[in-house]
Amino acid sequence: MEKVKRGERLIAMTRMLVDAPNQILPFQVFCDRFQTAKSTVSEDIAMIEKVVAGYHLGQLATVTGAAGGVRFRPLLAWKEAQELLLQVAQTLNAPDRILPGGYLYLSDLLASPVVTRKMGSIMARPCYDLNVDFVLTMETKGIPVALMTAEALGVPLVIARRSSKVYEGSAVNISYPDGTGGIETMSLARRAVANGQRALIVDDFMRHGGTAQGMIALMKEFDTQVVGLAFMLAQQREQPLTDLPEWPLMTFTGDGITEPIVVSPAKWIMEQGDRP
Amino acid sequence: MEKVKRGERLIAMTRMLVDAPNQILPFQVFCDRFQTAKSTVSEDIAMIEKVVAGYHLGQLATVTGAAGGVRFRPLLAWKEAQELLLQVAQTLNAPDRILPGGYLYLSDLLASPVVTRKMGSIMARPCYDLNVDFVLTMETKGIPVALMTAEALGVPLVIARRSSKVYEGSAVNISYPDGTGGIETMSLARRAVANGQRALIVDDFMRHGGTAQGMIALMKEFDTQVVGLAFMLAQQREQPLTDLPEWPLMTFTGDGITEPIVVSPAKWIMEQGDRP
Repeated sequence: MEKVKRGERLIAMTRMLVDAPNQILPFQVFCDRFQTAKSTVSEDIAMIEKVVAGYHLGQLATVTGAAGGVRFRPLLAWKEAQELLLQVAQTLNAPDRILPGGYLYLSDLLASPVVTRKMGSIMARPCYDLNVDFVLTMETKGIPVALMTAEALGVPLVIARRSSKVYEGSAVNISYPDGTGGIETMSLARRAVANGQRALIVDDFMRHGGTAQGMIALMKEFDTQVVGLAFMLAQQREQPLTDLPEWPLMTFTGDGITEPIVVSPAKWIMEQGDRP
Repeated sequence: MEKVKRGERLIAMTRMLVDAPNQILPFQVFCDRFQTAKSTVSEDIAMIEKVVAGYHLGQLATVTGAAGGVRFRPLLAWKEAQELLLQVAQTLNAPDRILPGGYLYLSDLLASPVVTRKMGSIMARPCYDLNVDFVLTMETKGIPVALMTAEALGVPLVIARRSSKVYEGSAVNISYPDGTGGIETMSLARRAVANGQRALIVDDFMRHGGTAQGMIALMKEFDTQVVGLAFMLAQQREQPLTDLPEWPLMTFTGDGITEPIVVSPAKWIMEQGDRP
């Protein structure tokens, strides 16, 4: 391939980096693809780094060492995250969201590629330096946001099921209290996870915390360490559910029966204020 | 904001376009953001168009008219699609994939952000000009690839459930033959879909076609038109399942009991040969 102009190289490099979130791409990849010197690639990377930061379009970092290279992280500016969550909270607080029994209709938001991609990017942010090996979720509704979080972190998604399936092979099954007096079961294929890995738990909704506690217990069975829990929407609590870090995107008060459910963006996100 | 250099503009524009797949962004958006003339934006777009096409990093198109602007589609080159599917088929044909009962272990591939993003881009490709309003899938395993397909098409994902849930509100429930003599049920919230919309059905696996037929029947209840069916892996058949277009990514022969399951990339994809 002939030598390419700088503008063309910048476009192609940006596209390549955005397509591989949180993966380290060696400089050599770009040298080979664009037939150019490492010093030129370095200058290009510096420019892309400056521009994506300046326009709040993500974060580029150069990683030194033998396995070094350049890495793109799809950060959402805190301001943009706050605006998104304020808007989603407003949508959820509208009267037409309330279902019989006081439940909130969430399915459209939970399955929206646009909303879940942004939420996944917010969930990934506090976890980039925690060496997460995979994201764990429990079927069904949390799968989209968990997938987007896994993609932002550049790790696989692992999905626990309500019961074991023939097409999952041998599985670990656990029973856990659902937090309201009942017992639920959860199943995960043996080969889905390896001992010693580090898991981030992601789920859409947390009220009594039964499912979250179930996932933590399941990870113990696999000798896996849980680095924290991220929820799209969690009940506001006096005491945290566990001693693990928790990153809810939004919290709610009320039970929908005696008191209406009121959703707000989570405090730890609003406290970031104007930071980039 | 002060005027920005061309290189910087190209980087930021590429990032913005890639972040909004299949959405038409008006030129004015870029004129405002970069304080620049429409003619300059046009030149930049032409360059990005040339580069993403040249490096097989997607497709940019200018849409004229009142609602005009520029639109990015995350196309995977056919060659790259073929290589991916050959590699996945090879992975699936390995002996360690066979579970007791002749089932194939697919869960890791089905939940991989990297694999499902590429597969979603292949599934979206034949559907870009079919005015799809939403992607429909049935829980659980098809959700990741269906979400990625919906994102590539720039439309919402709608998830049918095995049974109706209180937190989905009033729902349409149907019973359907599962293709092996049993009866299954499927449920979709009334407010998930509007009459007259156009649906693309996406699922991970199709053997007897029961679930696919169920989804088609469900769409009839909503007066929704199905434009076609995309499957990650479908049984090779003499006769098509329906008179709707079908886009399997891979097909398989064998039942896993009397004959081993053998997976191959789908013919319609391999036939594209060297086309970009």
